[in-house]
Amino acid sequence: MSRDDELKLLGTKTCPFAIRVRIALNQKGLSYEFLVEDVKNKSELLLKSNPVHKKIPVFIHNGRSICESLVILQYIDENWSGTSVPSLLPTDPYERAMARFWAVFIDDKLFSSWMGVLKATAEDAKAEKIAETIAGLKLLEGALKDCSDGKCFYGGDSIGYLDVVLGSHLIWLRTVEKMSGAKLFDETVVPLLLEWEKHFIAVDCVNSVMPSVEMVQELVKTHLLAK
Amino acid sequence: MSRDDELKLLGTKTCPFAIRVRIALNQKGLSYEFLVEDVKNKSELLLKSNPVHKKIPVFIHNGRSICESLVILQYIDENWSGTSVPSLLPTDPYERAMARFWAVFIDDKLFSSWMGVLKATAEDAKAEKIAETIAGLKLLEGALKDCSDGKCFYGGDSIGYLDVVLGSHLIWLRTVEKMSGAKLFDETVVPLLLEWEKHFIAVDCVNSVMPSVEMVQELVKTHLLAK
Repeated sequence: MSRDDELKLLGTKTCPFAIRVRIALNQKGLSYEFLVEDVKNKSELLLKSNPVHKKIPVFIHNGRSICESLVILQYIDENWSGTSVPSLLPTDPYERAMARFWAVFIDDKLFSSWMGVLKATAEDAKAEKIAETIAGLKLLEGALKDCSDGKCFYGGDSIGYLDVVLGSHLIWLRTVEKMSGAKLFDETVVPLLLEWEKHFIAVDCVNSVMPSVEMVQELVKTHLLAK
Repeated sequence: MSRDDELKLLGTKTCPFAIRVRIALNQKGLSYEFLVEDVKNKSELLLKSNPVHKKIPVFIHNGRSICESLVILQYIDENWSGTSVPSLLPTDPYERAMARFWAVFIDDKLFSSWMGVLKATAEDAKAEKIAETIAGLKLLEGALKDCSDGKCFYGGDSIGYLDVVLGSHLIWLRTVEKMSGAKLFDETVVPLLLEWEKHFIAVDCVNSVMPSVEMVQELVKTHLLAK
């Protein structure tokens, strides 16, 4: 990082898509200004920086905006490569493809499943979304087995792209468990994921930005479910 | 490409997500076996190769499957890099981020807009989706101005990632125009895109795989709109 690099991140403390960018920036050892947005009253800077979607997170590097969290993660990885910290994405093209495949799965399928649990009003719809979430986690248990090569993380010995992508949903999944009463992480079904979680939340660059279940729960009650 | 490399692509001739992979393979000068799927009666190979989504396209390289077309494109680009053909993605990290951002926009927003025109039953819903499609194309006109640096393609002098991604929707957009009667490409609104289209469809590796409007129209009538 050049001495003149100016890095800004527009997000909120509980947004999973902003959390992952903060973890990646921390892991790369990059200093940045974190500008907390009020999503009910978006800043001029946000509207100007992401005119297409008007959504957080937005990463601004020397005045140039990058939007969409998976795009931002890859930008950070490619722009600050060859440093002393490991890359987020694996180097092997096939392993990179697997990481990208599962990242899209997490943000499309897993996200809509657990969000569906929170938003469901009928019991049968809720049960369906809980089952979908559990099935998604089971697939990610298999992916962890395939990607980690017996090590702690999807990225191997240190956290990588998939760890950051799934890890940013973790506190929300735990909040969904608490609010719905459903057991999403059963140790007979996802034993590796439970081990992974322990290691993941113990990493410094993760736990320094991870909100509490109570904080997320409060947000769900006051914003997401408020009419 | 090693003499022993075995490349297979599972897709259909009209699927935009398969068309883009074929263009990329052609552009890289790679030989592959194209296995045409019947999406109403999926092959065992497809179900086995993409157990998560059970969808085309699937690219199989020496027996290993890669799913999701944007993931496949990046795999092809990274696996067959440093050859005599240009890369699909730009080399500059910011330009790569822009290409990835717009690719996701095309597959999420633009795709759902034009598909919405085809599927709309009420006139006001159809008009709304037509307006959305036109607005999306207008944004992509701006992106072309930003990315192409005054050259023919998003990728500059030769077709790149964004050309392939948007280009694979092109024949569908022209089919939507024909079937809906709406003018999507107005020369006063998207003059650069119209120029880009002329250059794009003239490229050998593109026109050899591009279906006709009539072929796509037939598919829409017999499959997409059939009850």
